[in-house]
Amino acid sequence: EREPPELGLIRKPAAFISIISDERGQELMYAGLRISDVFKENIGIGGVVSRLWFKRRLPAYATKFIEMVLMLTADHGSAVSGAMNSIVATRAGKDLISSLCSGLLTIGSRFGGALDEAAAIGIGHKIKSVNNADLRVELIKEFVIKNFPNHTLLDYALAVEKVTTAKKDTLILNVDGCIAVCFVDLLHDSGAFSRDEADEYIKIGTLNGLFVCGRSIGFIGHHLDQKRLRAPLYRHPADDIFINMQDMSQPRVLAKPA
Amino acid sequence: EREPPELGLIRKPAAFISIISDERGQELMYAGLRISDVFKENIGIGGVVSRLWFKRRLPAYATKFIEMVLMLTADHGSAVSGAMNSIVATRAGKDLISSLCSGLLTIGSRFGGALDEAAAIGIGHKIKSVNNADLRVELIKEFVIKNFPNHTLLDYALAVEKVTTAKKDTLILNVDGCIAVCFVDLLHDSGAFSRDEADEYIKIGTLNGLFVCGRSIGFIGHHLDQKRLRAPLYRHPADDIFINMQDMSQPRVLAKPA
Amino acid sequence: EREPPELGLIRKPAAFISIISDERGQELMYAGLRISDVFKENIGIGGVVSRLWFKRRLPAYATKFIEMVLMLTADHGSAVSGAMNSIVATRAGKDLISSLCSGLLTIGSRFGGALDEAAAIGIGHKIKSVNNADLRVELIKEFVIKNFPNHTLLDYALAVEKVTTAKKDTLILNVDGCIAVCFVDLLHDSGAFSRDEADEYIKIGTLNGLFVCGRSIGFIGHHLDQKRLRAPLYRHPADDIFINMQDMSQPRVLAKPA
Amino acid sequence: EREPPELGLIRKPAAFISIISDERGQELMYAGLRISDVFKENIGIGGVVSRLWFKRRLPAYATKFIEMVLMLTADHGSAVSGAMNSIVATRAGKDLISSLCSGLLTIGSRFGGALDEAAAIGIGHKIKSVNNADLRVELIKEFVIKNFPNHTLLDYALAVEKVTTAKKDTLILNVDGCIAVCFVDLLHDSGAFSRDEADEYIKIGTLNGLFVCGRSIGFIGHHLDQKRLRAPLYRHPADDIFINMQDMSQPRVLAKPA
Ligand SMILES: CC(C)(COP(=O)(O)OP(=O)(O)OC[C@H]1O[C@@H](n2cnc3c(N)ncnc32)[C@H](O)[C@@H]1OP(=O)(O)O)[C@@H](O)C(=O)NCCC(=O)NCCS
Ligand SMILES: CC(C)(COP(=O)(O)OP(=O)(O)OC[C@H]1O[C@@H](n2cnc3c(N)ncnc32)[C@H](O)[C@@H]1OP(=O)(O)O)[C@@H](O)C(=O)NCCC(=O)NCCS
Ligand SMILES: CC(C)(COP(=O)(O)OP(=O)(O)OC[C@H]1O[C@@H](n2cnc3c(N)ncnc32)[C@H](O)[C@@H]1OP(=O)(O)O)[C@@H](O)C(=O)NCCC(=O)NCCS
Ligand SMILES: CC(C)(COP(=O)(O)OP(=O)(O)OC[C@H]1O[C@@H](n2cnc3c(N)ncnc32)[C@H](O)[C@@H]1OP(=O)(O)O)[C@@H](O)C(=O)NCCC(=O)NCCS
Repeated sequence: EREPPELGLIRKPAAFISIISDERGQELMYAGLRISDVFKENIGIGGVVSRLWFKRRLPAYATKFIEMVLMLTADHGSAVSGAMNSIVATRAGKDLISSLCSGLLTIGSRFGGALDEAAAIGIGHKIKSVNNADLRVELIKEFVIKNFPNHTLLDYALAVEKVTTAKKDTLILNVDGCIAVCFVDLLHDSGAFSRDEADEYIKIGTLNGLFVCGRSIGFIGHHLDQKRLRAPLYRHPADDIFINMQDMSQPRVLAKPA
Repeated sequence: EREPPELGLIRKPAAFISIISDERGQELMYAGLRISDVFKENIGIGGVVSRLWFKRRLPAYATKFIEMVLMLTADHGSAVSGAMNSIVATRAGKDLISSLCSGLLTIGSRFGGALDEAAAIGIGHKIKSVNNADLRVELIKEFVIKNFPNHTLLDYALAVEKVTTAKKDTLILNVDGCIAVCFVDLLHDSGAFSRDEADEYIKIGTLNGLFVCGRSIGFIGHHLDQKRLRAPLYRHPADDIFINMQDMSQPRVLAKPA
Repeated sequence: EREPPELGLIRKPAAFISIISDERGQELMYAGLRISDVFKENIGIGGVVSRLWFKRRLPAYATKFIEMVLMLTADHGSAVSGAMNSIVATRAGKDLISSLCSGLLTIGSRFGGALDEAAAIGIGHKIKSVNNADLRVELIKEFVIKNFPNHTLLDYALAVEKVTTAKKDTLILNVDGCIAVCFVDLLHDSGAFSRDEADEYIKIGTLNGLFVCGRSIGFIGHHLDQKRLRAPLYRHPADDIFINMQDMSQPRVLAKPA
Repeated sequence: EREPPELGLIRKPAAFISIISDERGQELMYAGLRISDVFKENIGIGGVVSRLWFKRRLPAYATKFIEMVLMLTADHGSAVSGAMNSIVATRAGKDLISSLCSGLLTIGSRFGGALDEAAAIGIGHKIKSVNNADLRVELIKEFVIKNFPNHTLLDYALAVEKVTTAKKDTLILNVDGCIAVCFVDLLHDSGAFSRDEADEYIKIGTLNGLFVCGRSIGFIGHHLDQKRLRAPLYRHPADDIFINMQDMSQPRVLAKPA
């Protein structure tokens, strides 16, 4: 029953409310759009994300931007925390989903999800600098400036970057910072969200979700890679672990032993 | 030693080998393709998957098919195991990644990953039938027949379906079955894989990976949905759980108690 | 350099520091105690937790209290979020560890981990009351009052409970609240921790860890239970899910479609 | 409703059956035993595991053996796959449960769960040998020989070990093998299980569950350890990863590009 129950009937209240899709009818619906229309209208993966996360159609530049973020964040090598954990789990013989989840569970404020927390940390990079630009940042900037109706926050961030790079040339707008400010510009200025909706979507971690979706492609790639390589169980080298007994030799007062 | 060391230098053997991407240079590379070329050549998300999973460029119909699978499997309502667990975790107050992983960890032979295991289970559906076709299956068939150079396995599956539906009209080729056979057709006949490579990619769970990537969009959608709805902690109704003391009242011989 | 290198040798700095155990020698050590002494001294599981988490020997009443918490929190039926998710994953055919993790990932501020966040929520229960006491609370109180050298915080909580239950008889000290205040009493008054150490252990989620360890026994129990019952794939009943299309029918302004 | 419904009433069939515990009554019950009796009878953590997993009381030597396995498997240093992943997740800033699950998801046929799969792999060790015995194995053997009514399988394994160590002195019965055969002896000869029950409990991964429970103590210990050390984000050293472009330079035939 989707509509008000027919007169005289008492509907048991449902324990779950869901707004994102409906598989009960003749055709699967993504937030009101028929799956056949999903393809007829060629909304793409960006369009599917729009419907399932935002429950609305977004302008083409916005769905294109979403796809761009998924593609840009899909992988960043095997040294980062999440890829490493996916690889270690794979090498321990685990299945694709266990390996993926072992990696995903590292994503958070320090790795990947940084921008969810504060735009403030979007400045600065360990290696990249004014003279060694991060191509990913250039690609995003170029796309946004060309396609977005407004990019107030990006402009602001670039103005800040001018000040900070004058002090130190690695204090550039980094890829996390750039994606985040542009995504906020999108939410604010696409005309598809009220300001409250935009702010809520930022607050509940939507950006993090995009990163997670994108990087899942990479983590699964690392899993398949290690499986094809038949990589054996990994054990971290003993000489890279310092077992500090010092901390334990401090006298521990056991005032009232039983 | 995997690489000829420069004369006179002994390189420490690396504990990890990786073939999927390279972030060390001036530009991030996806299996040898520069990130800027990823966009210049407009390979799309299907193209990114091709490079990071298969380390090669696939024909356009193949990357399009990959995107189609991601879109078709992105969600199937909140009643299925994985969506339910993502929702329950979200309602317990958990973050996006915990909720997503709680859901992903249900995917396997019974939910989602069925086709990884045997093409044999690709026939039959609880609700759908000859007269109540699954639109998703129609969309896939149409695309594949129109675009794939060969679709031997799909043809075979459709021939089998003719036999089975003659017996019982729900014994149709289901969506899992259809995706799986078409994916095998792609691996076999795109010319991009040797038969051994194709078989290995099937064996190590690549199809499962596609489903996982697609459905992550849905699970994250459910998480954002419940968060926006401010859904409270869920507790399953007591009357839906039968606590069977019978099983315990059987006499347990404790022959040799200490 | 964390350790004085031997004369003339330069030791590579280790990337990892670890203080909890050492498996490199003739005998495995738990925070400095030989595994054979672990058994000779009969420190029990509470003693193992003490050494691996707190790196010290705790008085017998403290290790006994730790074991008591593990036993009391081991299970609370199948209706709670975590047990439900473990069961749903098991019924989707997943292995023990996937099912366990799917359940564990629901534990947090609303389910299980409540006390980590604020002692403030330790008062009140939906069913239990002054006249229908929670036996688990009684067991803890009895043990602590009899064995702890001090229980300042428990006394305080019981004084608060007197005030609150005078207003409403369900405003009792609940099991989370009781465990939490007693655990803080233990850290503060066992003589084994400085006040700073005690506060840090509370802050970093140690209590949550105890609950997780205890409840893992239950979640694994539910997994084994469902497997023995050969429970089939679960799908939540459609009539318990309200798919609200209303939310989507609101006009969405698409001011600047591309 | 636990009992047969009263005459004339039709009970809705429950979607879930559960046999392990009951929290609906005046007192929480663990497989039929009141929580107050759990403490009165002093069944210990081993007894709680017995009730929640096996739904029966086991002899004292059996519950003691269960506790012994939990204690022996609680930790084995930070170099193993699971500890490493817990540590890496912790250093990425993740919470206790995410870090724990990231570690647990590595446990399987190669790490920890080996004995679930085949008793056959219980022989052989990389470091330990006849002259450098694994103390853990000695502790288990001693306990079992002294306390178990029968230890047919252990005796057999020790006879096999005599043959294998005559060939090579590292081909000893390892700790996994020893725990596994003794656990099977327990299930077979305690008188508490029929042979079918015993075999089913082995088949569904009970031993793996014990290892998971025990090692959770260690993984949580590593999490708390790293948090107290304020360990920063870990990135694996670039020079330990060999990025093999060779594999990609092989000509890929793109026979039928679209
Ligand atoms: C592209 C992203 C694309 C970078 O991913 P990544 O390269 O795998 O991430 P890294 O692990 O390399 O971390 C990025 C950098 O921040 C640094 N960093 C992150 N957290 C840090 C911390 N707490 N302290 C110090 N440095 C930190 C890392 O050391 C790393 O530096 P490096 O690039 O020189 O190595 C990803 O982080 C990202 O930006 N995502 C944003 C997109 C998005 O949707 N994000 C969701 C929230 S914004
Ligand atoms: C589209 C898919 C698209 C279906 O997802 P879904 O609809 O959420 O899956 P469901 O939970 O509805 O399960 C599909 C059906 O199989 C049934 N099923 C699955 N395993 C079953 C089992 N072991 N016993 C009985 N029925 C089973 C389900 O009950 C369900 O029936 P229903 O559709 O009538 O409810 C997904 O399963 C799929 O097919 N993925 C294939 C694509 C892919 O890459 N797969 C990876 C491996 S093929
Ligand atoms: C024993 C404990 C033992 C209870 O576990 P549990 O019974 O499985 O937990 P429940 O899911 O039943 O939740 C406890 C109650 O709090 C209620 N609750 C929790 N969070 C809530 C929220 N945000 N809003 C409303 N009610 C909430 C639940 O509804 C439940 O009420 P109920 O008992 O009437 O059903 C466990 O919560 C606990 O207390 N652990 C404490 C021990 C410990 O180490 N805790 C770690 C941090 S304290
Ligand atoms: C004690 C246990 C106690 C060992 O745990 P652990 O020491 O952390 O395990 P490790 O990672 O060191 O692995 C054990 C050894 O087997 C080796 N090993 C495991 N799988 C391997 C594989 N597929 N190929 C080669 N070597 C393998 C490891 O390299 C390791 O050798 P090492 O001890 O010399 O380093 C644990 O494995 C165990 O035995 N559990 C058994 C108890 C139990 O309940 N098990 C559940 C199933 S038996």
